[in-house]
Amino acid sequence: MADGTEPIWGEIWIENDKITYVGAEKPTEIHWDVERNVCGNLILPGFKNAHTHSAMTFLRSYADDLPLHDWLNTQVFPMEAKLNEDLIYHLSKLAILEYLTSGITANFDMYLTPDSIVQASIDCGFRTVLTGAVNDFSQSAALIGEWYQKYNGYHPLISFELGFHAEYTTSRDILEDLAALAALYRAPVYTHNSETASEVQSCVEKTGMTPTQYLDSLHLFDYGGGGYHCVHITPEDIEIFKQRGISVITNPASNLKLASGIAPIQALLDAGVNLAIGTDGPASNNCLDMFREMFLTTALAKVRENDASAVDANAVLRMATVGGAKAMRLTDCETLTPGSQADLIVLDLNQPNMQPLNNISKNIVYSGSKQNVVLTMVAGKILYENGQFDVGEDPASIYAKANEITAQLKAQ
Amino acid sequence: MADGTEPIWGEIWIENDKITYVGAEKPTEIHWDVERNVCGNLILPGFKNAHTHSAMTFLRSYADDLPLHDWLNTQVFPMEAKLNEDLIYHLSKLAILEYLTSGITANFDMYLTPDSIVQASIDCGFRTVLTGAVNDFSQSAALIGEWYQKYNGYHPLISFELGFHAEYTTSRDILEDLAALAALYRAPVYTHNSETASEVQSCVEKTGMTPTQYLDSLHLFDYGGGGYHCVHITPEDIEIFKQRGISVITNPASNLKLASGIAPIQALLDAGVNLAIGTDGPASNNCLDMFREMFLTTALAKVRENDASAVDANAVLRMATVGGAKAMRLTDCETLTPGSQADLIVLDLNQPNMQPLNNISKNIVYSGSKQNVVLTMVAGKILYENGQFDVGEDPASIYAKANEITAQLKAQ
Repeated sequence: MADGTEPIWGEIWIENDKITYVGAEKPTEIHWDVERNVCGNLILPGFKNAHTHSAMTFLRSYADDLPLHDWLNTQVFPMEAKLNEDLIYHLSKLAILEYLTSGITANFDMYLTPDSIVQASIDCGFRTVLTGAVNDFSQSAALIGEWYQKYNGYHPLISFELGFHAEYTTSRDILEDLAALAALYRAPVYTHNSETASEVQSCVEKTGMTPTQYLDSLHLFDYGGGGYHCVHITPEDIEIFKQRGISVITNPASNLKLASGIAPIQALLDAGVNLAIGTDGPASNNCLDMFREMFLTTALAKVRENDASAVDANAVLRMATVGGAKAMRLTDCETLTPGSQADLIVLDLNQPNMQPLNNISKNIVYSGSKQNVVLTMVAGKILYENGQFDVGEDPASIYAKANEITAQLKAQ
Repeated sequence: MADGTEPIWGEIWIENDKITYVGAEKPTEIHWDVERNVCGNLILPGFKNAHTHSAMTFLRSYADDLPLHDWLNTQVFPMEAKLNEDLIYHLSKLAILEYLTSGITANFDMYLTPDSIVQASIDCGFRTVLTGAVNDFSQSAALIGEWYQKYNGYHPLISFELGFHAEYTTSRDILEDLAALAALYRAPVYTHNSETASEVQSCVEKTGMTPTQYLDSLHLFDYGGGGYHCVHITPEDIEIFKQRGISVITNPASNLKLASGIAPIQALLDAGVNLAIGTDGPASNNCLDMFREMFLTTALAKVRENDASAVDANAVLRMATVGGAKAMRLTDCETLTPGSQADLIVLDLNQPNMQPLNNISKNIVYSGSKQNVVLTMVAGKILYENGQFDVGEDPASIYAKANEITAQLKAQ
């Protein structure tokens, strides 16, 4: 399924955090601690949410109905300035609960400071790849380098990638320092890229180049990397993505809601660029639902290209699973194969939106829903099953803290 | 909530099919058969699915990735030619299950023949407004007149409205006969209208008028009515909608998936036209999910207008409830007020996508999901609760029949 092939009937065996067998039913001497008969349902690799700002849950339904720049400057930044590590910890946990309901087993998280995000993920048993968000107002290239060393190898569920907020918020000095880090670690670099038309226009006016060309000229992508959004890109940008092995992470719901535009996914697919899907943060989406994003990825491509055959369901499923894992360098979480991490989900096909079974990939992408997710497993541990969470804290307590924090921040 | 106001804390009493009390907690002498404490959750009027073709469930994930005209002519029409009343009965029931999971309490159904659709709805306890689909190839104006008389007053859950398939499939003779029926019954007329650019262009070439102008010139809308889709409309069309009291029923997911375009919802709102939302049929959407449609209604308006403040959440909630009821002439199903039909839903707010509670309307429209629907009641009867259906037939039997029918039709 993950690569668009037909599903197989059979068993998956999991020992500790890894898949050890996938195939036809097979007798075994092993005594299993836990067995699940998911007969008639579908096991898939977990979805990878390849761009998000988890802790922004507190801004859900608070800062809406504004264009990107006003939204950032008048609503988001002033509220974010009041956050601290402890608040980020609780707000990140709320997002993790939502990821689990949507079959998301890993997130690529960009936020103010990594320490308590890392702790929230470890405490919940959730997998997180962090990326730096350095810009002229927060973090620093030196900190990014420290975090890169600290968090790679820190815990099996955690890794860290070099990154900065965006071209339009980050001075050339910082970008050059980051390029030096990329060269030092032979590491990819990730950033928001060409999200709005005005961002691209400003960069062209300032540098004579698009953001992609400008950043590439500074050697930021010598070891690959990724761009979030990439709505307003040129054929030359796409050529750079291809040559440098840069992944494009699309965020269709956020791009609609902030009126940013519709990304040229079909052109990126045609060029062979690796594609992944992200929800973006809950302030701009507002939900963390991979099913919504998958449908939008294909449906918006169809209306953008004026071609109902654009970006088919199998291509979208690949983006949401393998493509995301590649973008996040989670190479052992791509597919359901022995030796891979046991990051998987079970989808209930015995629901009206999944019937009849003409084509399972299309059912998932065109009519699938969070309602179909009956089990979400990360690193061999079931964190969500039949609506119940097992994340080390009662969800009611996580909701209560999120509401308290939100009330407190609004009152300040 | 239904009209954008803040929610109240209190009780709703229901006797038989009607709401008898809404307000603060109140002692009573009445012995209740059933009580539900939904404390902390939200009761809303049920969503009205104001345009669908329910029985097309058999084509879900079968005929995808084609533009509207090819899709109709090469996939849909040949398969539909093999249907009969019995098959339509079972396929309609599958759609009803899906409506219930999405908090939809009534549908406005246009399909080949009404008899078994009516029976499926009555047997499930579901509310259906049928509309005629006469065109040059099926039904007739005489049959529409017969059905109008037969099905209005036939059963409390059923009503029938005059309608035809579309300007581009229906000859002037039939349209004139329908206009005579509209005059006879002083009744509104409903149709697919201006769904694609090519449909509008053909009509202009043929008649010198847009479809809306042409149909209006034939007196089809002298007593109001409605247009499904209305993607490619002019300011003059909008003026006609306004003057004639014509509702516009938007179908955003279908319009994306068939690459038809994005409807000008903000302009229609500004003009004061009554707006409603429909899923369209499961062959073109492919799911019957009002949450997806609500998010798309606002998000697509934002990107179309290049204005993140376009079509706010309260406007969308009105369309999905009151606006739909008005379009379908379900005047006793609009709001939660004493004397109204008890068509209502309960949304679980204790889910991560509904937290924190900054703004409940925005939470529903921007991050709500079928997963939040814990109860769906039609005419005072609970048809769906906590994932279980009470529709007079086991869902597994409905799924099995849908798969059998689909296999049989594909093999023919």
